[in-house]
Amino acid sequence: MTITRAMLEALDKGDPLAPFRDEFDLPPDVLYLDGNSLGVLPKAAKARMVRAVEQEWGRGLIRSWNEAGWIDMPGRVGAAIAGLIGAHADEVIVADSTSVNIFKLAAAALRLRPGRRIILSEPGNFPTDLYMLQGLTMFLGGAVEVRTVAPADLPTALTDEVALLLLTQVHYKTGRMHDMADLTARAHAVGALTLWDLSHSAGALEVNLNGAGADFAVGCGYKYLNGGPGAPAFLFVARRHQADAVQPLSGWMGHAAPFAFDDTYRPADGMRRHLCGTPPILGLSALEEGVAIMARADRSHIREKSQRLGDLFITLVEQMCGDVFGLISPREAGQRGSHVSLSHLDGYAIMQALIARGVIGDFRAPDALRFGFTPLYLRYVDLWEAVAHLANIMQSGEYRQDRFQTKAAVT
Amino acid sequence: MTITRAMLEALDKGDPLAPFRDEFDLPPDVLYLDGNSLGVLPKAAKARMVRAVEQEWGRGLIRSWNEAGWIDMPGRVGAAIAGLIGAHADEVIVADSTSVNIFKLAAAALRLRPGRRIILSEPGNFPTDLYMLQGLTMFLGGAVEVRTVAPADLPTALTDEVALLLLTQVHYKTGRMHDMADLTARAHAVGALTLWDLSHSAGALEVNLNGAGADFAVGCGYKYLNGGPGAPAFLFVARRHQADAVQPLSGWMGHAAPFAFDDTYRPADGMRRHLCGTPPILGLSALEEGVAIMARADRSHIREKSQRLGDLFITLVEQMCGDVFGLISPREAGQRGSHVSLSHLDGYAIMQALIARGVIGDFRAPDALRFGFTPLYLRYVDLWEAVAHLANIMQSGEYRQDRFQTKAAVT
Repeated sequence: MTITRAMLEALDKGDPLAPFRDEFDLPPDVLYLDGNSLGVLPKAAKARMVRAVEQEWGRGLIRSWNEAGWIDMPGRVGAAIAGLIGAHADEVIVADSTSVNIFKLAAAALRLRPGRRIILSEPGNFPTDLYMLQGLTMFLGGAVEVRTVAPADLPTALTDEVALLLLTQVHYKTGRMHDMADLTARAHAVGALTLWDLSHSAGALEVNLNGAGADFAVGCGYKYLNGGPGAPAFLFVARRHQADAVQPLSGWMGHAAPFAFDDTYRPADGMRRHLCGTPPILGLSALEEGVAIMARADRSHIREKSQRLGDLFITLVEQMCGDVFGLISPREAGQRGSHVSLSHLDGYAIMQALIARGVIGDFRAPDALRFGFTPLYLRYVDLWEAVAHLANIMQSGEYRQDRFQTKAAVT
Repeated sequence: MTITRAMLEALDKGDPLAPFRDEFDLPPDVLYLDGNSLGVLPKAAKARMVRAVEQEWGRGLIRSWNEAGWIDMPGRVGAAIAGLIGAHADEVIVADSTSVNIFKLAAAALRLRPGRRIILSEPGNFPTDLYMLQGLTMFLGGAVEVRTVAPADLPTALTDEVALLLLTQVHYKTGRMHDMADLTARAHAVGALTLWDLSHSAGALEVNLNGAGADFAVGCGYKYLNGGPGAPAFLFVARRHQADAVQPLSGWMGHAAPFAFDDTYRPADGMRRHLCGTPPILGLSALEEGVAIMARADRSHIREKSQRLGDLFITLVEQMCGDVFGLISPREAGQRGSHVSLSHLDGYAIMQALIARGVIGDFRAPDALRFGFTPLYLRYVDLWEAVAHLANIMQSGEYRQDRFQTKAAVT
């Protein structure tokens, strides 16, 4: 079946999520296929940041910790995120970065499984996940090791030596999705715990942490949650572990009574013990607005549109570009998150040429062109325009120009 | 000598720092003596936040990592802070929170002093400093212990078992200042390293880390640096330790080549290895403006005015309030940072009554009323008004009203 522009326009007309597009401040002349790296600006976040800066900080000053509810923001925004990932409101809190939260929860898991010497993951997991585990185990002096095995070998690698299985639900490069419920059950069968990185799934899929029996999770605020550049991250601890999960970054905000100023750390109940330093109020303010929009959208509509966008994109690329690209991502939508990666040896330059035309995706070394599909603000017809640009760049050879070859600091 | 209002007005007329007041957006009807807890809003930060949100995030989106220089912000703001604390530009970087940075550098110090089993500090240090050490040592399974001794006993407690001495240069409650050069020399004499928490001194004193031979330091962005609520923090590693200082929160932003997406962590050269997750751009943007103002002020003028403000405040309290308050802080300005604490059993209620009148200080359990002096935006005559309110509250007994008794979440 050949896709036509008219078909895509018809899909936009019938899209129940179409009204959400107006809630975002999208730049003109840009087709943004990189919301999986940095989500766009919600209009409500613009007004909120002015209020947070001018009123809460400027006028309220220190009084805003109580009067503007700053002190409750990590839990309040966490509770809103919980609704997006199949968690109870009291199982999620916002703090620090995804990286720091991985360290906290991996360390907590090791304490819950003393004597077990392996943390299991997969090669090519998002680097920070592996790096944080390497820092953690290096620091513990070799008593615990990080082992990475290919996804297909995970079931046999799950033995009673494994303390923790850490996986990213949707792979940052390929978009391949793990079966969270199945792998969690397999981990539990050998007495291991699970830590799921939801950076590429929260806000993009119907994540169901409790349905899958997950133990721990972390995730990113600045991708599908539209929380702004470097937004604070979130972490999840299942209720059954909350009383026993103790993490080493035991800062004052995680104390049972931070304003008693005791000399001895005593962890707060529930999720507050996973806070560390003073919460980043400006970042939390923007994130709260991004999450609020997402919370109003129907999760099944998001997943349905996300899958359809990905399917149509793959088909359009083949239709317009022929076979010049490899498909890194799974073709089957049910095995994919909300982005699609293509491979090409000149991937970096091709992506630069696309960006120069206002079609923004990103490049992941060594050869992946990555395109993210964000159902709240992307139109079906945008796919037509984006792939037409891509086809034109390939046919014209425009990407071979020198100006597209120079690597930037951030790719 | 009796202080008069006219004397204070004359001091304001001759104050070389007076023009700086206009750079801040101060609320009307407020006398703000809490800049040591949360600094006020720089006018430049208002405009900067609009630019960061609407232009850089909203329009530039992912391109702003390169085009708006986001990726360089941790080092760039760090270099600006370096100029305030006697460090080289390549010795400071901005990342995470003060708490998280304490963990990083204390862990790095332990690796540089293997076999030594004590981290030394003082009782009553700011809680998060002690809590982070407790988390660190708990996590290491008892091989290292945290020992706290009174300041007078530090010289004898410094033995060749000590790996690290962690002190806050200016005490958060008493305002008492340690002699950084002397204690650093004593630590070095027994082979120990030093980690200085500058939260209450960066931007308030003439800190000279390299002059004192300090090894490591951390500090807060939201106090005297006016970086906004929950601003990111900074950390310092002396050049001589940079090649060997390895910290366990080894996130992707600390990797030598973050966008190579390797599976194996390899620390960046210099200070970048002390980054962990994705930098908090909104917080960094506000902080950069606060630091820029501070960088234009003459450091000796700041210290001179800070000391004079403190001296005058103490004298005015005695002049107007008699002997109802104890003086927690050192009377000698040279031994004090930039805040003064008074003691009173009804301290909490008295501070609430002051705040209700728009005179904002804060309370630190169990009995300290804390008043911070920020030379860039405080006038000498403000002291007169503030202490007159305090005297009136004490004479009228107004603080005994029920409405001032209820403890808020944040004190």
